[in-house]
Amino acid sequence: MKRPSRQGRPTVAIVGLGLVGGSLARALTRAGYRVVGVDRPPVLRRARAARAIAAGRSLAAAVSEAQVVVLAAPPLANLRLLRALARPRRPVCVITDVGSVKGVIVAEARRLGLENFVGGHPMAGTERSGFAASSTALFRGRSWILTPSGSTPPAVRVVRALVRAVGARPLVMPPADHDRAAAFLSHAPQIVSWALLAGALGDPVARRYLRMAGPGFHDMTRLAASPRALWREILAQNHGEIALALARLVEGLGHAGPKGWSLVSSRRRGARR
Amino acid sequence: MKRPSRQGRPTVAIVGLGLVGGSLARALTRAGYRVVGVDRPPVLRRARAARAIAAGRSLAAAVSEAQVVVLAAPPLANLRLLRALARPRRPVCVITDVGSVKGVIVAEARRLGLENFVGGHPMAGTERSGFAASSTALFRGRSWILTPSGSTPPAVRVVRALVRAVGARPLVMPPADHDRAAAFLSHAPQIVSWALLAGALGDPVARRYLRMAGPGFHDMTRLAASPRALWREILAQNHGEIALALARLVEGLGHAGPKGWSLVSSRRRGARR
Repeated sequence: MKRPSRQGRPTVAIVGLGLVGGSLARALTRAGYRVVGVDRPPVLRRARAARAIAAGRSLAAAVSEAQVVVLAAPPLANLRLLRALARPRRPVCVITDVGSVKGVIVAEARRLGLENFVGGHPMAGTERSGFAASSTALFRGRSWILTPSGSTPPAVRVVRALVRAVGARPLVMPPADHDRAAAFLSHAPQIVSWALLAGALGDPVARRYLRMAGPGFHDMTRLAASPRALWREILAQNHGEIALALARLVEGLGHAGPKGWSLVSSRRRGARR
Repeated sequence: MKRPSRQGRPTVAIVGLGLVGGSLARALTRAGYRVVGVDRPPVLRRARAARAIAAGRSLAAAVSEAQVVVLAAPPLANLRLLRALARPRRPVCVITDVGSVKGVIVAEARRLGLENFVGGHPMAGTERSGFAASSTALFRGRSWILTPSGSTPPAVRVVRALVRAVGARPLVMPPADHDRAAAFLSHAPQIVSWALLAGALGDPVARRYLRMAGPGFHDMTRLAASPRALWREILAQNHGEIALALARLVEGLGHAGPKGWSLVSSRRRGARR
């Protein structure tokens, strides 16, 4: 039988103890929650040693023990986990996720009839990844988007409380709004960061003088160190919105320059004076 | 008669006490140089009060007093100043500048026969501007490009010593290499920063949720606060190289996404699964 942990706080199972899952485990444990983790044995050992989790569990054991399950694996794995949680019988626990795209997983939860699912996305992160990069403070002061869609009000309340417990600000919006905004504010900037670095590396002169770059370039290419495999899944799930954001960006590149600027022009205004 | 200041260090005249000129004045004064400033009276008063300069001067007085003149005004003003310094007779002082484009001003110095001119560009800065944003530490650990072209070896030595005195690393390269590298490492990123912010502000959904943006977006749009008027001059002087860097960036946007990615496609892969 499921019982809330200390001071009536639910036991939370976190599936995937990477940068986000690991940070959430640390922050919730510090906030007094009982946290159990699901991941590969070496990761669980490290998380136990760091006192980020009370115990490591199999998925089945974690789900039967916890009142809340947080899916913190990469997007495609989260979808598989969601399907696994929906059978053979509906779980009584609340389920949320921390994925960067909300439309796909929210639609899947509705298709599966999971009214205890509340989509979530903390707007926090770094270019680093894995449990080693996790930190208690990752979410402090950050927005944490929630995209309830057919979710029960008690499930939303439980997830809201988790978000507040780690110092983040819950922000409720429709999944489609999230995916549009994330395309402009997170996904397109990620691609731009890669493309800026690739452009500089691809030019023999710029590449030779890469060490001359100032803080602006470093800030704008910091995200380029983000894990590619994870991002491939994110980009594939939000393809249409990102294509829109990038098309707008390319238009904007034309407007941001001097009057009459054209990306294909090779006329050198500076030399004409 | 010109005499070196304390400990044999030259007196330096800085024309334009904005972010870069003001920071240079502070750093050189701290390093024991005598620095005189040329700017509008209120700026000179502030710089004197901050002990960034020993005295404010007219351009003519500064040039007759100093062994080194640093042009730290916007690019077009630097060109006008260079022409003013070349008449009625060649100045005996060393001249350098801190502009973001080197080809145009170096060519002008050669045309004017100014062998004491050494083009320079500190790879440091912030999105802020004006003397109020200046700081002693701005150049510490940064690269400072020098583009001697027909410059006398003693002039290059003097400018190198200034650069080292403020904690920067002199890096010598041809003006054309500088302008190519700067297009990829500084000028194109500046335009991208504006375009990313403009894209987000131009989309009604992204605009509404701008406050949800994480640290990545903030880093990538920090430069968007840079002064537009100054940048218009920079972009105009390096138009061809920047157009090349942006064209490469746009190509890169296509490659950075998932396989088969296209900027014009509106097919939503995520929704197809």
